Amino acid sequence: MRRTLSPFVFIASLAFSGTLHAASKEPIQPITAAKVANPAMVELGKKLFFDPRLSRSGFISCNSCHNLSMGGTDNIKTSIGHNWQRGPINSPTVLNSSMNVAQFWDGRAKDLQEQAGGPIANPGEMAFTHELAIDVLASIPAYRAEFRQVFGQDKLTIEQVTRAIAAFEEVLVTPGSRFDQWLMGKKSALTKDELAGYQLFKSSGCIACHNGPAVGGNTFQKMGVVEPYKTAMTAQGRSAVTGKDADRFNFKVPTLRNVELTYPYFHDGEAATLTQAVDVMGRLQLGRTFAPDENAQLVAFLKTLTGKQPHLVLPILPPSSDTTPRPVPFD
Amino acid sequence: MRRTLSPFVFIASLAFSGTLHAASKEPIQPITAAKVANPAMVELGKKLFFDPRLSRSGFISCNSCHNLSMGGTDNIKTSIGHNWQRGPINSPTVLNSSMNVAQFWDGRAKDLQEQAGGPIANPGEMAFTHELAIDVLASIPAYRAEFRQVFGQDKLTIEQVTRAIAAFEEVLVTPGSRFDQWLMGKKSALTKDELAGYQLFKSSGCIACHNGPAVGGNTFQKMGVVEPYKTAMTAQGRSAVTGKDADRFNFKVPTLRNVELTYPYFHDGEAATLTQAVDVMGRLQLGRTFAPDENAQLVAFLKTLTGKQPHLVLPILPPSSDTTPRPVPFD
Repeated sequence: MRRTLSPFVFIASLAFSGTLHAASKEPIQPITAAKVANPAMVELGKKLFFDPRLSRSGFISCNSCHNLSMGGTDNIKTSIGHNWQRGPINSPTVLNSSMNVAQFWDGRAKDLQEQAGGPIANPGEMAFTHELAIDVLASIPAYRAEFRQVFGQDKLTIEQVTRAIAAFEEVLVTPGSRFDQWLMGKKSALTKDELAGYQLFKSSGCIACHNGPAVGGNTFQKMGVVEPYKTAMTAQGRSAVTGKDADRFNFKVPTLRNVELTYPYFHDGEAATLTQAVDVMGRLQLGRTFAPDENAQLVAFLKTLTGKQPHLVLPILPPSSDTTPRPVPFD
Repeated sequence: MRRTLSPFVFIASLAFSGTLHAASKEPIQPITAAKVANPAMVELGKKLFFDPRLSRSGFISCNSCHNLSMGGTDNIKTSIGHNWQRGPINSPTVLNSSMNVAQFWDGRAKDLQEQAGGPIANPGEMAFTHELAIDVLASIPAYRAEFRQVFGQDKLTIEQVTRAIAAFEEVLVTPGSRFDQWLMGKKSALTKDELAGYQLFKSSGCIACHNGPAVGGNTFQKMGVVEPYKTAMTAQGRSAVTGKDADRFNFKVPTLRNVELTYPYFHDGEAATLTQAVDVMGRLQLGRTFAPDENAQLVAFLKTLTGKQPHLVLPILPPSSDTTPRPVPFD
């Protein structure tokens, strides 16, 4: 694990060698490196994140839809679930997700731990149950030993599973982007066009919702402020959680960190490219049609938000034992 | 890549520091470390192996069914393909597959490069075409640059893709197992029961088919020599390739390397445990019913064949461009 995490430490020291006064004037703050309080829990969480045995089929893991080779997303409009079910909404990136005000597009989970339990038991996603997931893990001697070591007790629980997954996800941050280098004072990190894009991002109002270290993720906002957003998708957003009609079509503002990697865009995944996404956002949220050169500058800026991706050694999962319940891929 | 591959080198030096005279008397030889002739090609092949954009859905990669976190297999009876189709046969491990006499259970591909093209274009697996896969890769600037660097030409071809994947797969070997340590002269590497299991493996005739460095993989043999093997699976084996009736139900003998990780067993995946697999093999191939303690010794021996799994840093895939054809997960 030391080997795996060393880049975080490396980036941390880089970051703090810069001056912060420039950053402090801006509405976007640099991402700071992950602090790994409990490396053993993070390592266990990594195994669980990659383990398809948490699904009924034995085929789908957290990493299937939050693929860490692809910006923590699956890069498809809506995800593929158990039995090839079509997911109801676009999978958000797991990268920097610890900075979100809440989890899921409608914020129905208060934090990463609460979120982690959702897909496992969702019949349209991993289609398992928490009880069966625990039966599987508890039947695997090496997992039992690792849980005991991390949590100091013999009984394996779903709370331990989700806590470990959340601990792993908390280290999935992406410092070191060119934009962050610029924020830290390296003025040559951005081109003239990228900087013009950032200025436009602020002056046109994008920054009102996309701000903070995650460049979003910290509020719920209505999709379609000036013009209504037309979509075939039935997701109602925040109102499904609060029950308030005023929250209808309010969604968590997505992070723009690594947005170059997290296509397609919007909760319905209907914007295939950043150019499209910028155009729609300008018209529907700001009542502004960006000229082609403005759009290009905004896109150029957005691509500077791609950070250093987590350096992860692929986990080797402990084998099932003779008593491990076998997956049921086909009913 | 240097970092990724260093363990192979490390193991190589370990291996050759032992004496080989003990090994030379045995019908199983130690696995030698991978020689990485072209690290850039291996690194490109790793990306392709993990890239689900080689499938129609954008969801299935080589690693989906040959999961390198799980012994290079998917640990399910038969794989899940595009649109959740049920595969016709158990996915063999990719680990040490370069040692196979040919690829697939029926040996219809002469080598790893020929194999690699199969699943991409198989309508029941990745359900893509070679042409579309090339269109996708050629639309991604970072891939184009990497192919150009590795192959020294501008035109991107399916032969380059399969050659790079094969180059990656060739380094997926697992030296350093306890059995290999024993072969190299470290007598304390095996327990008494494990050694008794190996002696029985030889004296009872298992070794007739499962021999060589991969402990199998080097011949085609009939499934059901003494008693016929009953299965609902329609796969005919080698006769589908040769057209000879005498080859009916001849399958490539699977490697027993890492067999602890590659459950379930047989071409139909119907043996869930090593205990079952040993029992069936004894009765059907050798006409011998192993007593419970004999079976346990054989299983104990088989578990000593688990080697050092490849140490792989998860690849970060280059993002699609605006012109990249988008995946079609749902028709």
